[in-house]
Amino acid sequence: MTNRFAVVLAAGQGTRMKSKLYKVLHPVCGKPMVQHVVDQLNKLDLEELITVVGFGAEKVQDQLGEDSHYVVQEEQLGTGHAVLQAKDILAHKEGTTVVVCGDTPLLTGETLQQLLDHHDRKGAKATILTAHAEDPSGYGRVVRSSDGQVERIVEHKDADEQERAIKEINTGTYCFDNASLFAALENVSNDNVQGEYYLPDVIEILKAGNETIDAYQTDTFSETLGVNDRVALAQAETLMKKRTNEQHMRNGVSLIDPENTYISPDAKIGQDVVIKPGCVIEGQTVIENDAIIGPHTTLTNCEVGEAAVIRQSVASDSKIGKRVQIGPFAHIRPNSDLGDEVKIGNFVEVKKATFGDGSKASHLSYIGDAEVGTGVNIGCGTITVNYDGQNKHLTTIEDDAFIGCNSNLIAPVKVGKGAYVAAGSTINEDVPAEALSIARSRQTNKEGYASKIKNIKKD
Amino acid sequence: MTNRFAVVLAAGQGTRMKSKLYKVLHPVCGKPMVQHVVDQLNKLDLEELITVVGFGAEKVQDQLGEDSHYVVQEEQLGTGHAVLQAKDILAHKEGTTVVVCGDTPLLTGETLQQLLDHHDRKGAKATILTAHAEDPSGYGRVVRSSDGQVERIVEHKDADEQERAIKEINTGTYCFDNASLFAALENVSNDNVQGEYYLPDVIEILKAGNETIDAYQTDTFSETLGVNDRVALAQAETLMKKRTNEQHMRNGVSLIDPENTYISPDAKIGQDVVIKPGCVIEGQTVIENDAIIGPHTTLTNCEVGEAAVIRQSVASDSKIGKRVQIGPFAHIRPNSDLGDEVKIGNFVEVKKATFGDGSKASHLSYIGDAEVGTGVNIGCGTITVNYDGQNKHLTTIEDDAFIGCNSNLIAPVKVGKGAYVAAGSTINEDVPAEALSIARSRQTNKEGYASKIKNIKKD
Amino acid sequence: MTNRFAVVLAAGQGTRMKSKLYKVLHPVCGKPMVQHVVDQLNKLDLEELITVVGFGAEKVQDQLGEDSHYVVQEEQLGTGHAVLQAKDILAHKEGTTVVVCGDTPLLTGETLQQLLDHHDRKGAKATILTAHAEDPSGYGRVVRSSDGQVERIVEHKDADEQERAIKEINTGTYCFDNASLFAALENVSNDNVQGEYYLPDVIEILKAGNETIDAYQTDTFSETLGVNDRVALAQAETLMKKRTNEQHMRNGVSLIDPENTYISPDAKIGQDVVIKPGCVIEGQTVIENDAIIGPHTTLTNCEVGEAAVIRQSVASDSKIGKRVQIGPFAHIRPNSDLGDEVKIGNFVEVKKATFGDGSKASHLSYIGDAEVGTGVNIGCGTITVNYDGQNKHLTTIEDDAFIGCNSNLIAPVKVGKGAYVAAGSTINEDVPAEALSIARSRQTNKEGYASKIKNIKKD
Repeated sequence: MTNRFAVVLAAGQGTRMKSKLYKVLHPVCGKPMVQHVVDQLNKLDLEELITVVGFGAEKVQDQLGEDSHYVVQEEQLGTGHAVLQAKDILAHKEGTTVVVCGDTPLLTGETLQQLLDHHDRKGAKATILTAHAEDPSGYGRVVRSSDGQVERIVEHKDADEQERAIKEINTGTYCFDNASLFAALENVSNDNVQGEYYLPDVIEILKAGNETIDAYQTDTFSETLGVNDRVALAQAETLMKKRTNEQHMRNGVSLIDPENTYISPDAKIGQDVVIKPGCVIEGQTVIENDAIIGPHTTLTNCEVGEAAVIRQSVASDSKIGKRVQIGPFAHIRPNSDLGDEVKIGNFVEVKKATFGDGSKASHLSYIGDAEVGTGVNIGCGTITVNYDGQNKHLTTIEDDAFIGCNSNLIAPVKVGKGAYVAAGSTINEDVPAEALSIARSRQTNKEGYASKIKNIKKD
Repeated sequence: MTNRFAVVLAAGQGTRMKSKLYKVLHPVCGKPMVQHVVDQLNKLDLEELITVVGFGAEKVQDQLGEDSHYVVQEEQLGTGHAVLQAKDILAHKEGTTVVVCGDTPLLTGETLQQLLDHHDRKGAKATILTAHAEDPSGYGRVVRSSDGQVERIVEHKDADEQERAIKEINTGTYCFDNASLFAALENVSNDNVQGEYYLPDVIEILKAGNETIDAYQTDTFSETLGVNDRVALAQAETLMKKRTNEQHMRNGVSLIDPENTYISPDAKIGQDVVIKPGCVIEGQTVIENDAIIGPHTTLTNCEVGEAAVIRQSVASDSKIGKRVQIGPFAHIRPNSDLGDEVKIGNFVEVKKATFGDGSKASHLSYIGDAEVGTGVNIGCGTITVNYDGQNKHLTTIEDDAFIGCNSNLIAPVKVGKGAYVAAGSTINEDVPAEALSIARSRQTNKEGYASKIKNIKKD
Repeated sequence: MTNRFAVVLAAGQGTRMKSKLYKVLHPVCGKPMVQHVVDQLNKLDLEELITVVGFGAEKVQDQLGEDSHYVVQEEQLGTGHAVLQAKDILAHKEGTTVVVCGDTPLLTGETLQQLLDHHDRKGAKATILTAHAEDPSGYGRVVRSSDGQVERIVEHKDADEQERAIKEINTGTYCFDNASLFAALENVSNDNVQGEYYLPDVIEILKAGNETIDAYQTDTFSETLGVNDRVALAQAETLMKKRTNEQHMRNGVSLIDPENTYISPDAKIGQDVVIKPGCVIEGQTVIENDAIIGPHTTLTNCEVGEAAVIRQSVASDSKIGKRVQIGPFAHIRPNSDLGDEVKIGNFVEVKKATFGDGSKASHLSYIGDAEVGTGVNIGCGTITVNYDGQNKHLTTIEDDAFIGCNSNLIAPVKVGKGAYVAAGSTINEDVPAEALSIARSRQTNKEGYASKIKNIKKD
């Protein structure tokens, strides 16, 4: 096999996005477009991947990090000029270079592999990735001779009526023999209305030099979508959502409404998981078998254990054990770790807290900066008072403790094993194991006083 | 009219579902597929309905209960073999048997009725339910002679080019004359690649015996969808959602986005009800006229009164009165009963509680195991302390009582008619009618102390 | 330019809506259909706009107010009769009248302008707005002579096979020379099955009088949708949603799922705003650049500042400053005003309250009828006790105050600048600046008592 290289074109500004954010950094399903492209290219066995950066160069490099090498295109003088920036690195290396636009997030490694394999098999100097478009309007058409050989690409605006009827279109992705590519690029001129150096001109130059040009037509036109504005961005999102979701369904995940379920391409979901409408599963979230998620639940970088149930809730950067029940209307904030069979009920916020197996905070509580043992029952309205205005402090609640409703636990504080805090108490000293702690006033009933109050207030 | 019988084929495993759950038990719009099939069949005037069970037999029987009789297919030897299991029950009974797959949840009683009526009218020994498929690829085709008589069914893989052009497909639903069916089944062989006994072979055998075979073509191809994997399961859900929702809209319900509204086929919804996007209406929920539901509200088995408004909330197994206002972000748990004009506001949980007409819990409260009278005002942060670690106890709040904010009512406890509980009180003894009850500490202001605290903490 | 007038037909009952609400008042994207029509007409330079009202006349007038003049059609005798009600106002005025149905909410001012311009340019006495329908079934067809002149309109039911093949349909929108219109209307008869006077008959009458009839064909068939039942109402909503959302995307707004994003046609949204799935943006909401909204957020008539983030929350009739963070699960009720960099966290309700820059209420609080200064920290569980059963009172919290968790602030009350309220306190007197205020009981630990309680309760 010949050596393989890739050039990603990521220097354009993308004015039609109308955005401060640089075009290829706009996310699709939560991941920047150029990262999708690079992730797919990295499935190939490449010698080197070079990203041509220009506008927003620094931010693109921040995003891709060590996934790529970089060359800078100082001026935006066209796609041919962009590829030429990689000359010093690639021109002298024997092999094949695939050139991909950074705004084609749907292109898969499989298709690119097929393109390269086709190229090698046919021994062409250049191979165009093409697709069949039901409505080819606006695209460059691939003109083939009667024996099927690629003759040339004709732009839509330059095409005659017969050529416009062609439905095989140029996707803008190519692979080239390195030496031929860079030799031809030297001869590309900018003698056109825009004054730009166009990469497709390489095809014409090679053809004129009697080199073999070939084309590989992919079955999936939708993969080749290039994103130039936010309408196309939303289309890309929809297509990738469909792809991701179908794959999960085929693997044994039930999605009640795949059109209304948003799953990160990096999420992992087990068999017999059910995801109800309106869920957003972000980042590296892992969901184990038999969990039931949703409706209207957002998970970001969470590990969710087997048969956990999470309804109408939000969780991020946390670990959720087996058979845990969360929600509706719960919020699990980062660095929380919920043991098996924990229950976090409605209007409960958990932040940077561990819960041992079987512990419960079922209603209207805030448990932040806390270590909660096993078998603990945290009553409704309990608050860990973790912040004194300057610093955050830790609350420790040991196994089998019972925290009465509407209690304040003023951290740092420890409630011992099996201890009992009476409802309505504000606790600012440690409670020994098995002790009852109480801090509240005795009740007084003033007979007939309610009527008096009402009368006074009416005056 | 001849006697009518039905056989439901529900014995297959459904490996492509990749599920522990037995195929026909996978739900569509919240109801297992086989239950949809049986519910539709039960709209016909049947002498007997027999379900052939195999894999997961017990769970299918648990689901259908007395809606069906059962025969067990011990080994999965094909659809013909499956029907044969009903021989002892049906073969000796004169009449017509309709055979339906348990994985066709969209088939309606109306269509099955039309099939049976057509069968009777034509006096055929077997009648195939067919449909017109725009893309018939993969389906068995119905080959008719020039005079329209059904000649035979040809499987896609066995079809020649001319036959593949046929767009009338076999849906896999049939009706048969009983005697003919079971006689023919005896002659079905398993001499094929899979070694299975196929039901469609009955058609060929009857035809060979010069019996009349007919076909009834339904208009709605989509009804005949068979579900073999979760992608098809999601399609079935979408189609049934569309059907259910269009029916509600034609009856005078406004659905702001029918594609994003999930209504149980068993729900009942009155005229001029408005349902906003993202709502999930489950089970036997009944919603009376003029109610406004959503957005993002989940109702399960609730009765919702006229002109009630429920926003961004979750309610289950409860009764909600007229002109009640709930939400956003409220949670009504099972066995609650809210009178007319009750208000349950944001971050309020109600569980197993009754509220008399006009009572309010507007903010951040938990009212569980409680009987609340009429005209009661429950202040923000009120908690019924219903659990002492061992048992649940009842809170009673009588008419016109006023519960101050952040109060704890430690059950069992009663607040009398017109009584007033001061904010921040923990009440563990009954409050007499018209009394003021207070249980809190006097406020002390320590001048200049806040600055001291800040300085100390900074150290 | 000739004088231009408009007549809006809004007198029909709309029985197929099955609604107490008068047909043209049913909302599309939150705005009544007839208001959409009138808003679009008011983009034209009209001398006068007249709405013909009948059923529900008063409510239509309440809706449109001074946007229109009104004439009443006492009996529903057909569209021709409806237009005739405007005779006294229009017949004597020279100019052109456009006639539009009140149930065509998607028709744009641009298209109506083109229709009028075409009419003037061609010097016709009547011009029909037509459209190309892929499936023209049910519509009146526009029959043209071989030279393209409009010959007549033929209703679907009266059309022969050749005419039914015509795909240019009558949209039911017209413009007319005033004098010709009202002269012809006098000759329209009700000699038909329904016994109604039909407006399209005017075309025939004018044609018979050798007047020039023309037609202007719009490109966008979908604009001409007339809404007769709630299925069509939902379609109109979907089409308008698509139109609105595409416009925002082209202007630089990212919509993660435009199909699941509901934006009022009157909302204004800045560049680089991101709106996640499930959001409902209602009324006159304005969202400044770089804000991130959603998922599942509902905003009604809010002003949202630059780079604010609002997750899973509900806000209405309030002002939200720059870089404010809200949610998830927060509720901002009317007349609130949040300064820059305010944080309103989970399970917090804000009502009729102002927050100075940088103040925070991060968890489980109710802040109603309050003035909060800058740099204030409101602890978890804080409640402004604003209601005493009779009246609402104001809470004032001055700059840099710190309110401890689970505090009650019994209004009217003021917490001074830099003051510190201890957790669990119920405050019913003013707290001086820089003071510490505390109102709680001392904690008592009863050793071994928890075990005793458990044992007793088990008995």
